[in-house]
This record gives sequence, C-alpha cells and structure tokens, in this order.
Amino acid sequence: MITQIDHIGIAVKDLDKQIKIYSEMLGITPGKTEIIEEQKVAVAMFSVGEIRIELLQATTDDSPVAKFIEKRGEGIHHIAYRVDDIDDRLRILKEKNIVLIDEQPKIGAEGSLIAFIHPKSTAGVLTELCQMNDKGV
Amino acid sequence: MITQIDHIGIAVKDLDKQIKIYSEMLGITPGKTEIIEEQKVAVAMFSVGEIRIELLQATTDDSPVAKFIEKRGEGIHHIAYRVDDIDDRLRILKEKNIVLIDEQPKIGAEGSLIAFIHPKSTAGVLTELCQMNDKGV
Repeated sequence: MITQIDHIGIAVKDLDKQIKIYSEMLGITPGKTEIIEEQKVAVAMFSVGEIRIELLQATTDDSPVAKFIEKRGEGIHHIAYRVDDIDDRLRILKEKNIVLIDEQPKIGAEGSLIAFIHPKSTAGVLTELCQMNDKGV
Repeated sequence: MITQIDHIGIAVKDLDKQIKIYSEMLGITPGKTEIIEEQKVAVAMFSVGEIRIELLQATTDDSPVAKFIEKRGEGIHHIAYRVDDIDDRLRILKEKNIVLIDEQPKIGAEGSLIAFIHPKSTAGVLTELCQMNDKGV
C-alpha cells in the first residue's frame, strides 16, 4: 500500500544558489548537504509537512541528474511514494503491465529499499517507490 | 509560513488513460473528475497522505496545460505549497527578489487564494502558493 509521498526530487545546476532561494521561498532551513556517491549527487533536503523537497546537483558529468538537466533543463526529477511492502507493490504493477526500471528493489539511502517506475508509464513522471528500513528511517 | 505541500499537478494528454494507470499504481481511487473552466482543465485528484496528486488535462487548445505539453511533453506541471498568510509570503518573496507571476493573490478552486512564482526563480519548477478559504477547504 502507498502510505504517503516521501519526497520530491528537483534537479538543479547550482545547489548553493537554490538552497538560498528555496530557504527564502519556504522560510525553512535545509538539513546538512549530503553527497550520495552511488547516485552521483549532492542533496539538500527541506522538510515540508510530512514530505521532503530534495534539491539534487550532479557530482559527475555522467550522473543521471546531469543527463536529465542536459536533456530537459532544471526541474522536477522524480516523485517518491512511500510503500509498506515494496515487493508486493512491484508484483501488482508488473501484473498491470506498468513498465518498471527496477523489477527488484535496490538499496537506497539509509538502508531503505527503492525501485523506479519508467516515466513512459506514468505521464512522463519518473516515479520512485521506497520502503523504509526497519528503524523507520 | 508554509505549512505543507498541498498538491502536485501533473499534465497529461489522456486523462482517462492516466486515471486508470495512477489508480493501479497507487492503489487509490480518485475523486470525481472536475472541469475548472477558468484554468481550462479537467482535473482528477488522488489523496496520498496529506497531499493530493492532480492529473490535469487541457480542455482547450489555448489552455496553459496544452501549451506546457506542447513545449515540454507530459510531466509534472507545478508544485503547490499551502501557506497560512499568502499576502505576507508574497511580500517576503518580493523583498527577496524572487520573480512572481502573480504579485497579488487571485481566486482559485473553492474560494482559495492562489499565486504563482515564476519557474526561472525556482530551478525550473512552476510553484504555486495557496491559502485555504475560511472553511479550510
């Protein structure tokens, strides 16, 4: 079951510049910027109600975020939905012929399980499912 | 103050097709499809936790959603943040030189007050502020 939206990822060219703008716009201070080596991104997160806005800057030229910006410009990169059972949800999506990028979950930040759905199935929106780790993080 | 994300608008070409896909993907039934004459869109809403996913289909060729799809294809159209005092927030944004589409709030759905921030200020993301009406709708 989908329980809530977990986060919205926004691809940006200049993280420091956008941290300043989003801080001013939202009136919220982000958490500490983190580098996620595996995804080749630097991330700043703003908590807004129950969800997070993630500003994503590529750390290498071959980062998926760099490729996204090259193709589409800055903007929303993905929406992530939190699920209680990712295996079950992936099985249902497969049965419904929704095109998956990841047929099996992979390890995301802080031991969460994540899987991406192809944007061609979801009106051009790269969609992530994530199941929290046992600690609920 | 920003209190939460209110909704995420997704521009789609074929509302009925995407209602089917999003219903299957999210395991949630949307509310009844509504036509919003002023915005020239048909809207189907899915409640996910505290926020809503809005699928938007243009009802005329000159609808902003039709123009968006022509330029960028289907995808996320805007993020809307809920604020408790839209006048105050717009004043702060103006002081910070964030570029506004609407310097004064206008009337949105169900008597809410809304204003858009220009995507060139916010990393390519069309951003809406909305203040609920007195009934909290």
